[in-house]
Amino acid sequence: MTAPLNLVTISGSLRRGSFNTALLDNIPDLAPSGLIFRRLEIRHLPVYDGDLEVDDMPPDAVRELQRQIRASDGIVIATPEYNHGMPGGLKNAIDWLSRGPAPHGLQGVPSAMLGASDGTIGTTRSQSHLRQTLAALNSPAMPQPQVLVARAQDKIDVDGKVTDESTRKFIRGWLVEVERWMRRFPRSERE
Amino acid sequence: MTAPLNLVTISGSLRRGSFNTALLDNIPDLAPSGLIFRRLEIRHLPVYDGDLEVDDMPPDAVRELQRQIRASDGIVIATPEYNHGMPGGLKNAIDWLSRGPAPHGLQGVPSAMLGASDGTIGTTRSQSHLRQTLAALNSPAMPQPQVLVARAQDKIDVDGKVTDESTRKFIRGWLVEVERWMRRFPRSERE
Amino acid sequence: MTAPLNLVTISGSLRRGSFNTALLDNIPDLAPSGLIFRRLEIRHLPVYDGDLEVDDMPPDAVRELQRQIRASDGIVIATPEYNHGMPGGLKNAIDWLSRGPAPHGLQGVPSAMLGASDGTIGTTRSQSHLRQTLAALNSPAMPQPQVLVARAQDKIDVDGKVTDESTRKFIRGWLVEVERWMRRFPRSERE
Amino acid sequence: MTAPLNLVTISGSLRRGSFNTALLDNIPDLAPSGLIFRRLEIRHLPVYDGDLEVDDMPPDAVRELQRQIRASDGIVIATPEYNHGMPGGLKNAIDWLSRGPAPHGLQGVPSAMLGASDGTIGTTRSQSHLRQTLAALNSPAMPQPQVLVARAQDKIDVDGKVTDESTRKFIRGWLVEVERWMRRFPRSERE
Repeated sequence: MTAPLNLVTISGSLRRGSFNTALLDNIPDLAPSGLIFRRLEIRHLPVYDGDLEVDDMPPDAVRELQRQIRASDGIVIATPEYNHGMPGGLKNAIDWLSRGPAPHGLQGVPSAMLGASDGTIGTTRSQSHLRQTLAALNSPAMPQPQVLVARAQDKIDVDGKVTDESTRKFIRGWLVEVERWMRRFPRSERE
Repeated sequence: MTAPLNLVTISGSLRRGSFNTALLDNIPDLAPSGLIFRRLEIRHLPVYDGDLEVDDMPPDAVRELQRQIRASDGIVIATPEYNHGMPGGLKNAIDWLSRGPAPHGLQGVPSAMLGASDGTIGTTRSQSHLRQTLAALNSPAMPQPQVLVARAQDKIDVDGKVTDESTRKFIRGWLVEVERWMRRFPRSERE
Repeated sequence: MTAPLNLVTISGSLRRGSFNTALLDNIPDLAPSGLIFRRLEIRHLPVYDGDLEVDDMPPDAVRELQRQIRASDGIVIATPEYNHGMPGGLKNAIDWLSRGPAPHGLQGVPSAMLGASDGTIGTTRSQSHLRQTLAALNSPAMPQPQVLVARAQDKIDVDGKVTDESTRKFIRGWLVEVERWMRRFPRSERE
Repeated sequence: MTAPLNLVTISGSLRRGSFNTALLDNIPDLAPSGLIFRRLEIRHLPVYDGDLEVDDMPPDAVRELQRQIRASDGIVIATPEYNHGMPGGLKNAIDWLSRGPAPHGLQGVPSAMLGASDGTIGTTRSQSHLRQTLAALNSPAMPQPQVLVARAQDKIDVDGKVTDESTRKFIRGWLVEVERWMRRFPRSERE
């Protein structure tokens, strides 16, 4: 029997009623049975400032986040697109995760991403920047399929439920691939 | 006689002793006589959260920053490179600047960028992401020359002075081009 | 009286019936009266190979193209998106244009871009790569507005005419900005 | 006993004496014993033009290249950097590989890249664009370590041999990771 996968998730949007946080909330319902999700918060992290580090060590809140990610089997990031890139707050969290003694928070941890927007582009530019940063940190990011939920207001209701059937189906298929991807990088083989 | 240009500057690094902040501190000495610089701070901005906006209006600190940028003739941004992109804190400031009633903080405001790193790559990937975001905001960013100060520790002394003569010369020539660039986009023609 | 602007255009797609070539064919009709367009061909250029250069000089076909671009007041490039980037053939033409004695084909020549696709993304990733390459070559590319014609098959008829009224209107407004942009960089001020 | 891996390689540079082709020529000597390399040529491919396809089928030369890649266990691409991106010729080859009936040439085929330049940046921007295109095609590209051979003329001799000992050592370690990466994506599990 295959052991379940413990995945952590991060939303790049902080506001209540975020479409991206909603996507993460819908995932457990749409996922194959072997996947367990746990959402991590980044809203309490300060803006990165090297002077907040003591002996090159990031603050406790960062170290706790790093510990939780490294204890997981993989990470799923939901990201909006702000100004043709990922949100500064999400990049800031990743910048913190890269600090302190190696291995850093994301090193060797497999990743997958998805995104929703109210326009028609659906976060492709944001995901492109996120993907470049994950490569920099040696986190293998699943290349395809890409979840770009455009016009999210038509597909997610006011309670945050993904109601659009073709979107639900697409995310279901994507989660099957997420499981396959994460299992290619077993935690036991991480240095 | 040509009126002087009033330029504002932002450093993407918050730490004391930052090479990038040092670059900005050196610029007035190296610039042609017609350029006046004023440094703006971004360290007091919270991480962007849509719920911090009231009636789609950003907090006062953001609006004041927007006002100062719009009252200027152009903006110069010094950026380090974190994880193959611009610092989350810098992107966060720009995300804030894009909020509220149009025209936003950077719309139509000409820009130029420079960067320093202690490695050999010298922030080229960070500048590429910054450039993409400035295009999104309709801020015309000077394409060339690009200031990529690699191995900054060999070129900037402990007091933050750029001591390397060829770097000083390069920045001098770059500032001549910055003035030319900014003058192509007079404030009076901004909508 | 203002002198007319002579602009050259390049299509990144070679096939007959290309939506992008069609966009260029529609532009003269939609443009302000002061703009004159001349289309340049890139289909006869070989794939770049340094061994085709003699004494660092590109072949005659390239030099002729460089000459025509430098004799213009600016360049407009229509680009499809292939595999999240610009077409290899378009990049190849630009690579050739960057060769030979300075100033190269595009150096200091202002540029603007537009793109059409049959999907919903509308070439934003292709334009992002094109923009990065134009910055490398010191060609100032107009940052906004961005023409991303999605689902072009619904907006351009079989004769290549842009029939969608809102697309026509958008391109009209874009061309007004193109003229403004190109006039900021008069040929007489080019080194 | 582990079966050997059959890897194909492509050089993004066509000129004789290319540093990037030289890197590929050096790889067999530096690789672990289980890796077998076979170089594929792209120089005979025409510039992509949809009208060269018959019934959506690419020319025979493309189909043969697709067949060879799909018959391999993975692909290694050496790329120079031209104008802040990958060479047009390399992108053109990849554009061709993406054509015809699915699965396309690169779909599901694991990849790794390396690059050499005579400047100090060492192809990081070219690799970034290549990485984005490989993600578009669902080719999992190894995120780290990244081989950026800067000032290649000091590290590769006139006969194309990598003589710099630290570069040799770095590539040796990189090839160990390449093998690990490729084995995570066995051909038998490809759809």
